[in-house]
Amino acid sequence: MSTSIDVLGIGNAIVDTLARAEDDELHRAGLRKGAMQLVDEARAAEIYAGMGPTTVVSGGSAANTLTGVAGFGLSAAFIGKVKDDDAGREFAHDIRSAGVAFDTPFASDGAATARCLVLVTPDGQRTMNTYLGACQALGPDDVDERLASAAKILYLEGYLWDPPAAKEAFLKAAKASRAAGRRVALSLSDAFCVDRYRGEFLQLVRDRLVDIVFANESELHSLYETADFETALRALAGEQNLLGVVTRSEKGVVVVEGETKVAVPAYPVEQVVDTTGAGDLFAAGFLAGLARGLPHAGSASLGALAAAEIISHVGARPQKDLLQLARDHGLFA
Amino acid sequence: MSTSIDVLGIGNAIVDTLARAEDDELHRAGLRKGAMQLVDEARAAEIYAGMGPTTVVSGGSAANTLTGVAGFGLSAAFIGKVKDDDAGREFAHDIRSAGVAFDTPFASDGAATARCLVLVTPDGQRTMNTYLGACQALGPDDVDERLASAAKILYLEGYLWDPPAAKEAFLKAAKASRAAGRRVALSLSDAFCVDRYRGEFLQLVRDRLVDIVFANESELHSLYETADFETALRALAGEQNLLGVVTRSEKGVVVVEGETKVAVPAYPVEQVVDTTGAGDLFAAGFLAGLARGLPHAGSASLGALAAAEIISHVGARPQKDLLQLARDHGLFA
Repeated sequence: MSTSIDVLGIGNAIVDTLARAEDDELHRAGLRKGAMQLVDEARAAEIYAGMGPTTVVSGGSAANTLTGVAGFGLSAAFIGKVKDDDAGREFAHDIRSAGVAFDTPFASDGAATARCLVLVTPDGQRTMNTYLGACQALGPDDVDERLASAAKILYLEGYLWDPPAAKEAFLKAAKASRAAGRRVALSLSDAFCVDRYRGEFLQLVRDRLVDIVFANESELHSLYETADFETALRALAGEQNLLGVVTRSEKGVVVVEGETKVAVPAYPVEQVVDTTGAGDLFAAGFLAGLARGLPHAGSASLGALAAAEIISHVGARPQKDLLQLARDHGLFA
Repeated sequence: MSTSIDVLGIGNAIVDTLARAEDDELHRAGLRKGAMQLVDEARAAEIYAGMGPTTVVSGGSAANTLTGVAGFGLSAAFIGKVKDDDAGREFAHDIRSAGVAFDTPFASDGAATARCLVLVTPDGQRTMNTYLGACQALGPDDVDERLASAAKILYLEGYLWDPPAAKEAFLKAAKASRAAGRRVALSLSDAFCVDRYRGEFLQLVRDRLVDIVFANESELHSLYETADFETALRALAGEQNLLGVVTRSEKGVVVVEGETKVAVPAYPVEQVVDTTGAGDLFAAGFLAGLARGLPHAGSASLGALAAAEIISHVGARPQKDLLQLARDHGLFA
C-alpha cells in the first residue's frame, strides 16, 4: 500500500460485544444512555456479567468508517493497535476481508485487545462501554509518514485523544498529511469526548491541522458550549478554511463551509434496529464522495445512504454491497 | 438445579463464526452447501482465512434449542464442554444469560473451545464447518444421573455421536432418564450425520432409549435410505412407541405416532436471512409445548413460530421474547 490510497484512517481498534437491554437495565447499571464511557477491566467484567446473550463483531469508529470507504469501492487503509489474541486476530481478519489494508504490528504483550460493550435499547440507541486495552499501545512509531502523506484524505477519530500515545500518532500523521497538501478530517466522536478535549480539538482546526470536521448535533453543541443549534452551526461555519459536516439523525445532514450551506435529507429506514456505527458509516459515504470528487450534496447523500444501511441491522459494519447500493440510488456512476 | 427442570439438553458446545458468502465461493472452497462438515484445526484456519467479515455468536445445536426452551419460559439446563478460553467464557455467559442452567466444568487444558464456521449464502442457506475442539472432552463424568432422571424431557443431538466419549455421556443420560420414566428426544442433526450413524440411531429407537425423534426431510430420507418422502414417513410411523416429528421448511411440519398423523403449516417469513438454527428452534418450541402438556399440533405450531423468528435474522439464538411471541399468536395462555 503506497501511493494509491484514497482514505487512510487512524483509530482505536476495538471488537464490539453487543446485547439487547431495556432502559431500566441501563439505569440500574448506572450507564449513561447513548454515550461512550471508558471503563477499566474490572468494570468491563461487571457490565459484561449483567449483559444478555451477545453478538461479537469488529468495531472501532474509524475502523468502521474505513470498511465503509472500501465498501464503496475506494482504496482504504487503517492504522490501529490490537494484541495478538483471539479478538485481535478477529479484528485483523475482519478489516482485511472487508478490503482495507491493515499492517499495524500486533502488540505481543501488555493489555488485551480493546472491547466495547454495547447495550442496544428497544429504540435502537446504543450505550457503549469501552475498555481501551491494547489501543493504549498505539504510538507515533505505528505511523508511516509516507503513507499519511500519500493518502488523499487522512481520517482521524476524536477518541484517539483518550490513549495518550495515540494523540502523538494522530499529530504525526496530521502534520505529514497537511505538509503534503492533503486533507485531514476529524470526527468529534462523542459529546463527552468533546467535553474532555474541546480546547485541543478547536486548536487543531485553528492550527489548520484539520480541515474537515464531522459532528452530530450533541457534539456540535458541546464543541461551542451552546444549546442552540443555529448558534453552534454559525460558529462552525465561521472557522477559517474548514468544511463542517453535521449529521442530525432523521433530520438529515448540513454541510457548511464559510458562507456556503447545503442541507441533505436522511434516507427513510423501515425499522431502526441498532444505531451503532451510524455516524461512522455516514463519514464513510461522505469521504468516498469527496475522494471521488462529488459535490458536497452528493457526498452527504452517499453518507446518509450508508448510515441508513447500518442502522437497519445489528453491528457497525456494512452487510450490503455499498457500491451497488450507491449505484441503485443513482449516486455513483 | 434439580427437580424442577422441564428440559435437559446435551450437545456440542460451540461458538459460531458467521460470514456471508456467494455460491461460487463455497464451490471454490470445496464446501458442501447446506451441510455440516467436521474439520480439523488447519482446515478451519484455511476456511476462516477465505471468509468475509464475521459475526461471532454462541451456537451448538442442542444449546440453541435450550435457549429457546428457556425463552418460552420453561426451566432448561444444558450439559456441554467448553475450554476456559475467550470463546468458552463467551459460550457460558451467553447460555446462562439466556436463562439456561449450565454447570459443566470448563476444560482447563487440551483443545480450544469448538468453533463452527458458517457461510451464509444469499438464499439464507448455511454451510457449516465444525472444529470440535473441547467437545471431544465431554464424557460420562459430566452427566449427573439425578439431573437426567429429574428432567421431564432429555434432549440429545445426533452430532454427539461424533466425539467418541460424548456418545458414552449420551447413553448414560438416556438410560437414567428412561429408567425414571422420562421422555428422551433425539435430533437427527444432519443427513450426513445420519449417514455416519444410521444403524446406531435406529437401534436407540428400537431399544426404546429414545422415544421422540426430530428430523428434517433429508435426514428422514437418509435414515430410511429412500428418496420417497411418504415411504420414509411410513417407516418412521411404523417404529414402536415413537413420536416422530418431521420438519419440511416452508411446507410445515408433520407429526406421526403410529396411526396418528398431524400436519401443521409453517409461519410466513418476510425475508429468510439465515436458516442457521431453524431446526434447533423448531425443536425448542415443540419441546416447550410438550412439557407444558399441549397437543402435538399446538407444540408443532410453537416450533414453527420459533423457527420463523430465527431465520429472519443472523445467528441461531432468539432475538425476540419467545413467550410474548407465543402469547401474541394465541399459542400460550
